[in-house]
Amino acid sequence: MSLTQSILEGNRLSLTRLLTQVENDSPEGRAALAELFTHTGKAHLIGVTGAPGTGKSSLVNQLTLYYRKEQKKKVAIIAVDPSSPFTGGAVLGDRVRMRDLSGDEGVFIRSMASRGSVGGLARKTAAFVQVFDAAGYEIVIIETVGAGQSEVDIARLAHTTIVVEAPGLGDDIQAIKAGILEIADVLIVNKADRPGVENTERALRSTLELAHPTKRIFLHHGQTMSVNLPEADTILWIPPILKTISIDGTGIAELADAVEKHAAHLRQSGDWASRDRSRLRSELEAVLMDELMNRFVGNIQQDEYEDILERVVQRDISPYEAARSLLNGKM
Amino acid sequence: MSLTQSILEGNRLSLTRLLTQVENDSPEGRAALAELFTHTGKAHLIGVTGAPGTGKSSLVNQLTLYYRKEQKKKVAIIAVDPSSPFTGGAVLGDRVRMRDLSGDEGVFIRSMASRGSVGGLARKTAAFVQVFDAAGYEIVIIETVGAGQSEVDIARLAHTTIVVEAPGLGDDIQAIKAGILEIADVLIVNKADRPGVENTERALRSTLELAHPTKRIFLHHGQTMSVNLPEADTILWIPPILKTISIDGTGIAELADAVEKHAAHLRQSGDWASRDRSRLRSELEAVLMDELMNRFVGNIQQDEYEDILERVVQRDISPYEAARSLLNGKM
Repeated sequence: MSLTQSILEGNRLSLTRLLTQVENDSPEGRAALAELFTHTGKAHLIGVTGAPGTGKSSLVNQLTLYYRKEQKKKVAIIAVDPSSPFTGGAVLGDRVRMRDLSGDEGVFIRSMASRGSVGGLARKTAAFVQVFDAAGYEIVIIETVGAGQSEVDIARLAHTTIVVEAPGLGDDIQAIKAGILEIADVLIVNKADRPGVENTERALRSTLELAHPTKRIFLHHGQTMSVNLPEADTILWIPPILKTISIDGTGIAELADAVEKHAAHLRQSGDWASRDRSRLRSELEAVLMDELMNRFVGNIQQDEYEDILERVVQRDISPYEAARSLLNGKM
Repeated sequence: MSLTQSILEGNRLSLTRLLTQVENDSPEGRAALAELFTHTGKAHLIGVTGAPGTGKSSLVNQLTLYYRKEQKKKVAIIAVDPSSPFTGGAVLGDRVRMRDLSGDEGVFIRSMASRGSVGGLARKTAAFVQVFDAAGYEIVIIETVGAGQSEVDIARLAHTTIVVEAPGLGDDIQAIKAGILEIADVLIVNKADRPGVENTERALRSTLELAHPTKRIFLHHGQTMSVNLPEADTILWIPPILKTISIDGTGIAELADAVEKHAAHLRQSGDWASRDRSRLRSELEAVLMDELMNRFVGNIQQDEYEDILERVVQRDISPYEAARSLLNGKM
């Protein structure tokens, strides 16, 4: 039986093997990905992002337990740490995760980290998502350490993005990022048993108003979930702010409910299809760019390239002039 | 007089105009950059990164004041916030900065933020650096909000990278990032008048040992600056850990001294030249990639492209197959 066939039938060992091949960008990995691609497009992709210390890993564990117990769905978790130099194996926080979820055949956890380019990381994450999607995981959770553009890029892969905050992480003006909030579909104040939870919620709410000025009319009254305008309701999604305590599971059912409502909203509004399309458009562009570069590099003499680079290093010519001269010689 | 000539002669208005053109990636901006490029390669590029709340903006201000008063050097500051959607104008923290440094003709401050790709942000930052370098700024400080891969990418532009920590920002296991420490040339514990400074220093020191296992023998004794092995000293740079209080300027002279020692080390070891070369190699590759993509896009019919994308969306073919079929038709 082929590797892809075995993955489609749910073999975990084959799945692990393919993920490693995809991570190493091997020719076998690429071929298997292409074969599996036609089986994708079914999973609900959920991004979870938040600063260190917000307890987002515990939250992901609780949400996963909930999907397993209440909905019997298969769940894959991709834990991405763009700033960690460790790759493939275990990352910090995994031991806690393993204790909660190990031994369940319906859960697959994979960590990913890289000191390579962010673009590369986002693309490998996208490839992992496709593998899990094809392998029949109905929920794929992409967990990232928050606050940078890299997280925004990775969150773009998701249908539904959950942004996790927590009280007491410092009320620095920069701490709550408008950029991150802009991508949030559901906002969580985790560790809601801690002092300061009202302050965090208030700060989130006012930053949210800044990020979504057109929705101010609704947010103004603090009614973030039930808006009394049925026509608008089908178009606008107003990110709810929910309180959770991931240690004891408080608020997890409400979170799962909000995530499901968001998925329904996406399908109803047509955003599900348009996000899918724009995700695949980016992927096609990235693959094209790679292929173009590979073909170009295959056509050029290494010493010619080094000679031209040397002229740039000497400040004789600019990188733009160098690129043009390399291209005009070859294309 | 041409725009570039005027910039070379120190005209601030022309400088501002070019930065805007570069940010918008206009043809005039590109042409001016190419002309200015031959005047670059002189500035000392200093990256400053750290989490929100570490006080890195104040630290940058103090360091700038020091360079102005003690060394009469011209200083440019590029404040990059990869997670902010605001661009071009003022970002949070700028008002404090302006109060300290405004009115000094030898200081130029420019903020940059983007919701676009990180790659794009890093490249525009690189272009800004070249403009300031050509315009005669001896020190160019690139300040970024820390913790993501994007900051690592931006820090790669710098000759010397300062990583700023502060006590009391949460002792979460994920809070101090090995990935960030790996790029640090100088480590700062800012807000050193606060409780917990020893804990932060100790945590930094032990993470540093993890990040630089080969240097463990030196770090073991806590002697981070003076190592009694002259041969090794010329090859190895052991990131010093310094304590500062940016509010009153404590430790700033020592910081400037460490930065200067690092520059001397880079020149002596040959790393200055090799970092310059690898920076320009990446830039040449990025420009080449852009040009290749532009030429390819110019050769293809939009409707053909959309047809093939639609087949990907329908899961008929994978992005790899789509790219190959587009390329084989055209190249």
